[in-house]
Amino acid sequence: MRGRYRGVLEYLESLPLIDHHCHGVFEDDPDRAAFEALLTEAEAGGPPGVSMFDTQVGFALRRWCAPVLDLDAHAEPDAYLARRAELGAAEVNRRFLAAAGLEALCVDTGYAPRALLDPPALGRLAGARAHEIVRLETVAEQVAAEGVDAHGFADEVRSRLAALAPAAAGAKTIAAYRAGLELSGVRPSDAEVTGAAGILLRQEEMRVGDEILHRFLIWCAVDLGLPVQFHVGYGDVDADLRRGDPLLLISLLRAMDAAGAPALLLHNYPFHRRAGYLAQVLPNVYVDAGLATHNLGHRAPALIAELLELAPFGKVLYSSDAFGLAELYHLGALLFRRGLAGFLAGGVEDGAWTSADAERVAALVASGNARRVYGI
Amino acid sequence: MRGRYRGVLEYLESLPLIDHHCHGVFEDDPDRAAFEALLTEAEAGGPPGVSMFDTQVGFALRRWCAPVLDLDAHAEPDAYLARRAELGAAEVNRRFLAAAGLEALCVDTGYAPRALLDPPALGRLAGARAHEIVRLETVAEQVAAEGVDAHGFADEVRSRLAALAPAAAGAKTIAAYRAGLELSGVRPSDAEVTGAAGILLRQEEMRVGDEILHRFLIWCAVDLGLPVQFHVGYGDVDADLRRGDPLLLISLLRAMDAAGAPALLLHNYPFHRRAGYLAQVLPNVYVDAGLATHNLGHRAPALIAELLELAPFGKVLYSSDAFGLAELYHLGALLFRRGLAGFLAGGVEDGAWTSADAERVAALVASGNARRVYGI
Amino acid sequence: MRGRYRGVLEYLESLPLIDHHCHGVFEDDPDRAAFEALLTEAEAGGPPGVSMFDTQVGFALRRWCAPVLDLDAHAEPDAYLARRAELGAAEVNRRFLAAAGLEALCVDTGYAPRALLDPPALGRLAGARAHEIVRLETVAEQVAAEGVDAHGFADEVRSRLAALAPAAAGAKTIAAYRAGLELSGVRPSDAEVTGAAGILLRQEEMRVGDEILHRFLIWCAVDLGLPVQFHVGYGDVDADLRRGDPLLLISLLRAMDAAGAPALLLHNYPFHRRAGYLAQVLPNVYVDAGLATHNLGHRAPALIAELLELAPFGKVLYSSDAFGLAELYHLGALLFRRGLAGFLAGGVEDGAWTSADAERVAALVASGNARRVYGI
Repeated sequence: MRGRYRGVLEYLESLPLIDHHCHGVFEDDPDRAAFEALLTEAEAGGPPGVSMFDTQVGFALRRWCAPVLDLDAHAEPDAYLARRAELGAAEVNRRFLAAAGLEALCVDTGYAPRALLDPPALGRLAGARAHEIVRLETVAEQVAAEGVDAHGFADEVRSRLAALAPAAAGAKTIAAYRAGLELSGVRPSDAEVTGAAGILLRQEEMRVGDEILHRFLIWCAVDLGLPVQFHVGYGDVDADLRRGDPLLLISLLRAMDAAGAPALLLHNYPFHRRAGYLAQVLPNVYVDAGLATHNLGHRAPALIAELLELAPFGKVLYSSDAFGLAELYHLGALLFRRGLAGFLAGGVEDGAWTSADAERVAALVASGNARRVYGI
Repeated sequence: MRGRYRGVLEYLESLPLIDHHCHGVFEDDPDRAAFEALLTEAEAGGPPGVSMFDTQVGFALRRWCAPVLDLDAHAEPDAYLARRAELGAAEVNRRFLAAAGLEALCVDTGYAPRALLDPPALGRLAGARAHEIVRLETVAEQVAAEGVDAHGFADEVRSRLAALAPAAAGAKTIAAYRAGLELSGVRPSDAEVTGAAGILLRQEEMRVGDEILHRFLIWCAVDLGLPVQFHVGYGDVDADLRRGDPLLLISLLRAMDAAGAPALLLHNYPFHRRAGYLAQVLPNVYVDAGLATHNLGHRAPALIAELLELAPFGKVLYSSDAFGLAELYHLGALLFRRGLAGFLAGGVEDGAWTSADAERVAALVASGNARRVYGI
Repeated sequence: MRGRYRGVLEYLESLPLIDHHCHGVFEDDPDRAAFEALLTEAEAGGPPGVSMFDTQVGFALRRWCAPVLDLDAHAEPDAYLARRAELGAAEVNRRFLAAAGLEALCVDTGYAPRALLDPPALGRLAGARAHEIVRLETVAEQVAAEGVDAHGFADEVRSRLAALAPAAAGAKTIAAYRAGLELSGVRPSDAEVTGAAGILLRQEEMRVGDEILHRFLIWCAVDLGLPVQFHVGYGDVDADLRRGDPLLLISLLRAMDAAGAPALLLHNYPFHRRAGYLAQVLPNVYVDAGLATHNLGHRAPALIAELLELAPFGKVLYSSDAFGLAELYHLGALLFRRGLAGFLAGGVEDGAWTSADAERVAALVASGNARRVYGI
């Protein structure tokens, strides 16, 4: 088994990945509290006495990231952070982005609480093509902030998205954080959009959170031929996880499927088996396990195996959902390759599939599926 | 471990299974597109570039079914289909039904989009006793189609079911596909049934989908002493999986339990742990992992182990839920035996139970529990 | 691996556990039917032909408890019960409580259908400090039964809880069994509490089940500085498991978190991954896998590994949720130690963390986290 695992892993290490959903990283050197806060989806690290290094992702980071900074594996947190500061964020970012072994990355630029490396910079560090993913709600909020009136809102959003589309690989919606995923499959009428826009424009903080507007934005993206990414499941504490269950999307996914429009369900944990079901029963639905893969650390193989229960292997993509810390680019890619290698090698060992099939599936999941869906 | 596993597996291979929920198979030779469509719960195979052979069930089929057709394990899909056509469906059906190693099968005859082998024919091919499971909604729809009026509907359905009951092993409801499983435990009154029947009879396509009618049908079956099977969880894209969560059934299951009426929860994935919980806390609830077992292929052992967490071992049954392709009879049985053998042998290896207990439990799950519940 | 596992297990066996949620045990000798009923969360054992010994917990009991009564492992149920009766409940209770290896136990005294050993007696048998957990709804029901009027209800409950608080380690709510866990984060007003109390006091059986009263009680406990335990997920058939999903608690948990009040989610199965998510994203949320650990028997390691996916290791506690049978104190502790040892040793084996880290985490989960949260 160990030999087979090595073989499949080496093959996967030879394949550059397409990271189809990720974010920028910071260019400054975080102190320990700031670093721990970036290791969790909470707003801050643990309460007194609880360290975010004592987590699956914390241990994985000490194990796999320390050597990239020339430390022994399992370096203590303070030693790790001291070395990180010594090298400086620019060098740290360079090392981890390069270590990820990417062919291309699709960067969601819609969330930036403070300055982050932009897609071209990420691409340069990674030695990979960088594509942009347009975050739909951000575009709508920019239009709203710029002073359109309710009647002009829909057209202005449409033309803004049309201008962004040619350079974008896809669009993303964060409806899961706002209205939730129980979105109907019906395109909203112009009158509905105008009504919802009117409400939005009268708010002090113009945050898109009306399910009519989410649907409108999604159909705008579909009409522009953009694959649509959905935040699903696991994410920061802002989200009400119940409303992030992918099964809530069934009506909209059926309608998108009928329109031949690809829908990409991101993260999915702990609903990843449900997402896999959707990927089986709807031809245009795709899934990944981003964010959860690095957060589960040593348990990532269990997640990958569960995702690959019902999801056809031609429907599963890789993403890191890395944000803020360049380490997460490396960890996501490394844990994904190792988890997938274990899954595929285990099947070869048990006679479930051949080595040739294992390599073919590895290539699909590493990049082939993303290349086909996004046309990149 | 390997020796113990062999031992338990050989014991399970010596035990004919009772397949308590299955369907007919087609008698014609499908082309590749039709075959792939039968390998998934979607309405068709994948989008361009995505093969349904690149799935857990697809790989399991190439691994385990090819040798039954005299091919090497892992035969390529086109070679497999060519050999299948060469042998012809009659021979293919004969081989796979025989390979399943069945003692009895309980055939749901309520869904047949086109001609399927009927229970006696399936039984002959399998060398097993064939029983029929009456699909409740189908009977009600036949009554409606034959021109009863709303006031006569309940009595006519009751007498139709009473006529079918003596030859039937049980009844099945597909409420999960229609009204969903949130059914109250109260028997509907005659006036309620008449009202709901009136609405049904005025529809162009008379499809039972009112929760009053589902409840009425279920209680008719209970009154006739028929165990009632519930479609739960995983199924085709028609279903809204959220409404197929077995926890929604709690009120009805409590009421059936108080009446001493056995309820059999079918499929259950990805809610199988919830189903196992219900099988523990309600004496008359039974569970299986049909459909999911063959769809999960190499991962079927994980499913079986999770189902057997809370479910008492005297409450777990085998079913294939095979439909259309005779391969699924063979795959379901084979993967079930192998998964259960791994589970039981693992326990013996770790000292969790004795070999004698493992064999006793194997016999319960293979057929003893089904024999007790259905009295067959 | 076996050597590493032994090493971590021996270390865990050297650490007394804090069992932060448990109940009393009976002092009489149950017959087989009564014993089987205590092995399940159903109201009684199985239907004819189904034994509750043929379950994960039943096999674990025969494996691990028989030797404590001087029998061979895997003793047959009748032999086990005969030996149990021969020794008598007092001796049986003494042996199993001592075998659990506890440092302290936190006893929920709010449920006692008939006489149970009280906390001091349990503590003496276990050789451990015994603390009391106040069950909030029980206190409210006692106040109601003693004849307060609606206007005086809130103050009387507050002063009763204030009197109990100094001797209590925490409080517990069973809202999951009554109103369900969808509780808002808002403190109810005095007028709301008076209104709800009025309704309660007019009932024949005064059972607290109004979500206003649950919230009121929880905030009373928070105001007294008591950590609050929530029944979540798996429990007896009384509960509607859908309403026991921890994700329903998000609003209340956010509000408690903002107030710095610890919330402890008990049991959690089959929602333990969701509970782990909450423990990550909210600093003051803690989790355990009590009740499920012994019920899953040989599968407990899978449960523990899943709980430790997202939950920070500084947020996970041990509890048995033992009730009625002293065996469950022993089984819970033993299966927890073995499951955690397997998890930690597996990580050491794979290089995910060091032996020193494994021991440090073991000590946190065994008792350190409980000591920090409860201040005991």
